[in-house]
Amino acid sequence: MIPTKGYAAMAAKAPLEPFSFERRAVGPHDVLIVISHCGICHSDIHQARNEWGGSLFPMVPGHEIVGVVSQVGQAVTRFRSGDRAGVGCFVDSCRSCAACREGEEQYCEDGLVLTYSGRDRSGAVTQGGYSTQIVVDERYVLRMPKGLSPAGAAPLLCAGITTYSPLREWGVGKYHKLAVVGLGGLGHMAVKIAKALGTEVTVLSTSGRKRADALRWGASEFAVTSQPDTFKKLARRFDFILDTVSAPHDYNAYLNLLRTDGTLILVGAPEKAWPLEPFPLILHRRRIAGSLIGGIKETQEMLDFCAEHRIESDVEVIPIRQVNEAYDRVVRGDVRYRFVIDLSSLA
Amino acid sequence: MIPTKGYAAMAAKAPLEPFSFERRAVGPHDVLIVISHCGICHSDIHQARNEWGGSLFPMVPGHEIVGVVSQVGQAVTRFRSGDRAGVGCFVDSCRSCAACREGEEQYCEDGLVLTYSGRDRSGAVTQGGYSTQIVVDERYVLRMPKGLSPAGAAPLLCAGITTYSPLREWGVGKYHKLAVVGLGGLGHMAVKIAKALGTEVTVLSTSGRKRADALRWGASEFAVTSQPDTFKKLARRFDFILDTVSAPHDYNAYLNLLRTDGTLILVGAPEKAWPLEPFPLILHRRRIAGSLIGGIKETQEMLDFCAEHRIESDVEVIPIRQVNEAYDRVVRGDVRYRFVIDLSSLA
Repeated sequence: MIPTKGYAAMAAKAPLEPFSFERRAVGPHDVLIVISHCGICHSDIHQARNEWGGSLFPMVPGHEIVGVVSQVGQAVTRFRSGDRAGVGCFVDSCRSCAACREGEEQYCEDGLVLTYSGRDRSGAVTQGGYSTQIVVDERYVLRMPKGLSPAGAAPLLCAGITTYSPLREWGVGKYHKLAVVGLGGLGHMAVKIAKALGTEVTVLSTSGRKRADALRWGASEFAVTSQPDTFKKLARRFDFILDTVSAPHDYNAYLNLLRTDGTLILVGAPEKAWPLEPFPLILHRRRIAGSLIGGIKETQEMLDFCAEHRIESDVEVIPIRQVNEAYDRVVRGDVRYRFVIDLSSLA
Repeated sequence: MIPTKGYAAMAAKAPLEPFSFERRAVGPHDVLIVISHCGICHSDIHQARNEWGGSLFPMVPGHEIVGVVSQVGQAVTRFRSGDRAGVGCFVDSCRSCAACREGEEQYCEDGLVLTYSGRDRSGAVTQGGYSTQIVVDERYVLRMPKGLSPAGAAPLLCAGITTYSPLREWGVGKYHKLAVVGLGGLGHMAVKIAKALGTEVTVLSTSGRKRADALRWGASEFAVTSQPDTFKKLARRFDFILDTVSAPHDYNAYLNLLRTDGTLILVGAPEKAWPLEPFPLILHRRRIAGSLIGGIKETQEMLDFCAEHRIESDVEVIPIRQVNEAYDRVVRGDVRYRFVIDLSSLA
């Protein structure tokens, strides 16, 4: 067993605090990664506060993990000590269902092993990246390409793949008009990635505060959804809408911004259902879909794509002792655009 | 002008009654059709009773029209006197938008001219098929293939195309598992057409009353949705669900019956929105879509397909004096599976 330091929530409403625990010994297929950076995802907060239910405590959150390999098991072939490596939202899956065989482990029919607050094959509770090191089967470890800074790349492992995967699944590219709803951690990655795919991007945001950022990243238009004429002006404009908002909002209003055969893709998960009217779907054969992170193969493809196009997250790097303050700021929407913890502050 | 007899609703809550009116004179591109049969669609009732709002009275309903051509304009090329002909839900469209140019007039961006309770290019109110004859531009008239009985074919012009079009749009065929929700006028056509496409069909119905019919038409399974274990037993079973139900119902429960990447297609339009939960969509990249009737080209393709596969609607043929009683029976769900008016009863 490998003694490890981290920050954990000891219970649902408790602030995170220093916590010592053990990682499993490095098995034949395992990689030991010394963590340099870990992003703060809003879902970390939901789970640390048990807002979705089912959280396991003590909980070390964190699933946007970047570091350097320091040890490998004897059967490991893809990594060597000294390699830069990343870990995302899951660290294992059944490996035998159709989804796993197709490299879409995120839809594993037997259920994923989440990077934290999950249970691994031995039944042990998994612990995430707000910690000094992690042991992961190499099959679930990403190669971090050169040219990406560790801090700016960490959020790619959740926010990046969550937006990249649906853009690729639906073939969004040149000749398409895309709206991105919400300009937070997910939304700002969506704008950058869609722009690199050659897509014409409009950002829909509740206020005009982030307009300059959106245009700088390549959005060609920015519309404020609290202005009443926005939904009239943009009616039937878009081929796709990527909806990153995790607060409840009216899907019907956004559906009406789609052309015939357009698709509204949900990657944000509001805790409250919103009434769906059938006519906006029926009258123009529109579609609503959901999408969940991405598989390991596609996550690697996304990292290589981001390196090639020099895409990183805009981040605010903090020492781990500021994590509770950062949580409160995330909940207030006061971050541009992702907090990343510098784990050297913990060592 | 051509004197015509029909049955009309004179106001929103009035029963239908005999009504005399005039059809326009046959123009150069027009076809005059002597109507032999017209189906009763549930939407006729919604509109005759102004339940969707916007109805125009007096209203002669009916958009599942079959008859024989008795006169053609001088520029007509596709029809001759004596040909069997059909008219569906619309009789004109803008002809120049992208949808019209692609033969998907049902999504016309300038709005369709509905077969009844619409306004044609001259501004006149259109009147439907519960009448002795109708004048329609040949571009919006279907050829009725040999081998289809006029009564059994009439419902194809709405119920048939409404179910055929999405099955084709989504490429439903062999190797797919399809559930059809609701076994009324639309649902029974869906079962027959999907079976002819080689699809494995399961019918989901609120009671077991129609089980024998579904199996006779080729459904391989019949499940009763009021039984509590049905939704557990069929979880993640289907590639597609064609939802023909027009009463409010829980979309989330049906979404959970879809496999990863499965699609729930709505062709019924409940008057009340149902709360949509994002997780059933996100966790398995599922989709919801709507679909509206079909274009003229695809409607012709559907008619030819049905003739080839000997598919007709199961109908109860009535004289027009029973139309009000039939309306009440449709509202009660007491019809197997479509009423069709024999217009010789009006002549």
